[in-house]
Amino acid sequence: MTRFERVAVIGVGLIGGSFALGLKAAGACGHVVGVGRGAANLRVALEKGIIDSIATEVTDADLVLVATPAAQYPQVLAAVAPRLKPTAIVTDAGSTKRDVVSAARAALGTRISRFVPAHPIAGAENSGAAAASAALFRGKRVVLTPLPENSAESLHAVESAWAACGARVSHMSPEEHDAVFAAVSHLPHLLAYALVHEFAGRADSAQLFGYAAGGFRDFTRIASSNPEMWRDICVANREPLLAELERYAAKLQTLRPLLERGDAVALEKLFAEARAARERWLNGEVE
Amino acid sequence: MTRFERVAVIGVGLIGGSFALGLKAAGACGHVVGVGRGAANLRVALEKGIIDSIATEVTDADLVLVATPAAQYPQVLAAVAPRLKPTAIVTDAGSTKRDVVSAARAALGTRISRFVPAHPIAGAENSGAAAASAALFRGKRVVLTPLPENSAESLHAVESAWAACGARVSHMSPEEHDAVFAAVSHLPHLLAYALVHEFAGRADSAQLFGYAAGGFRDFTRIASSNPEMWRDICVANREPLLAELERYAAKLQTLRPLLERGDAVALEKLFAEARAARERWLNGEVE
Repeated sequence: MTRFERVAVIGVGLIGGSFALGLKAAGACGHVVGVGRGAANLRVALEKGIIDSIATEVTDADLVLVATPAAQYPQVLAAVAPRLKPTAIVTDAGSTKRDVVSAARAALGTRISRFVPAHPIAGAENSGAAAASAALFRGKRVVLTPLPENSAESLHAVESAWAACGARVSHMSPEEHDAVFAAVSHLPHLLAYALVHEFAGRADSAQLFGYAAGGFRDFTRIASSNPEMWRDICVANREPLLAELERYAAKLQTLRPLLERGDAVALEKLFAEARAARERWLNGEVE
Repeated sequence: MTRFERVAVIGVGLIGGSFALGLKAAGACGHVVGVGRGAANLRVALEKGIIDSIATEVTDADLVLVATPAAQYPQVLAAVAPRLKPTAIVTDAGSTKRDVVSAARAALGTRISRFVPAHPIAGAENSGAAAASAALFRGKRVVLTPLPENSAESLHAVESAWAACGARVSHMSPEEHDAVFAAVSHLPHLLAYALVHEFAGRADSAQLFGYAAGGFRDFTRIASSNPEMWRDICVANREPLLAELERYAAKLQTLRPLLERGDAVALEKLFAEARAARERWLNGEVE
């Protein structure tokens, strides 16, 4: 396990705070400085022992985690770049990766060799440092999207940091990452938001919501997600998301004739196959 | 509260069994006979005290609940009709109502005046008499779709029975019922099945499911629903469901240009409006 004497976390929210706590719990770091805009949130982080000091710069940090909203990366990385010490290694926690890589290349220049993009697949109902937990990443997946320029040392260090938090680390290219998450995460969010918005805009919305029950509640849970965050994700990842939206719309079109002719056999087959696939997934069986 | 000396439950599963237990807990019934195909399930119901005896006919019942799969209603009602005593009142628990009303009219003839259709909005992960509970309907909605032929006495009796189980009883026409539930229940099920099926059929399905997380799990929970039941619901209610599917597909088409031009303002507005509507719903506020 790599030990980082000085860690800087930029954006000490649920993700950034949990990363700091995870490293500390594993004994993988020394001093953690917190950098961010929200003074009240940073004080909470300090009181909870998530960070050891509040700073405005990342000078001296051996490892820097960027965990702000992804739309802020260009400014954040531009501000950080000239302050990094030559050996500093940088990772992030953004939900999309092609845009993050572009922003990092633009801001970091040749230092891109020490920036290893990461996407921790973890979240929770709550946000902010107050919700941070050393256990957030335990058993969760963290996808690294290493760059051709990355040094072996940088990649190893970032792998080691996320592994110290208990995560299961895997690799993809940024393009592959964005395509996979457009499908399994971004599209469902868009679909859930769209359904709630559709019903909310109808003249009989009071009646519709009045009879919505548990199935609707779970189906639309992700429509209670943060609108700013999901706006940014949808804009950043719009090409793969549009492709997934088209494929899903085409899938829905295949259901029309089955319903029109009341094809009970074909509908049951489709439902049973979907249920079986979902059960295999829940049971951790290979698809 | 109306008391029913002799109650017959046809199909003693989660719903039928919970209805019997609910009536018993409220002191609203005397003897309950269970009628059904599954001998093992009926023995469980007897052992659990859900029913007091097993019968093959509903003779002598003052109140009959039909709680079999809805596709069996034509045969079940045809078999029941000639055995009903003249004062017997009949209700049901089907998820769709126009088809149930058609089947009841065909099977019951002039006795339709004593058939009051009902849809309890309650379910659970488990099924069968073993999962039945006197509390299943407490605080849950039961929609009655009374018919023009229904006598005031029949309507009152059925209202009283479901209310005795703790349900909040309301009324709609069968057409209105089927339109509302096509939107808030049947469509989400179809959408969830379709998404899982779409991913399961791809060459990279192992990778997709490998990175699916909590949002996907909740969004697709209803894709683990019973395929036979949902086949029957989709076929029985296909016209309103097709109309909802078309409206939703049109809604998705409105998202395309927003994504294509990366319209952050419009996307955030839509997401924020959807989230606000969902939060009002969760808080029980009027839409």
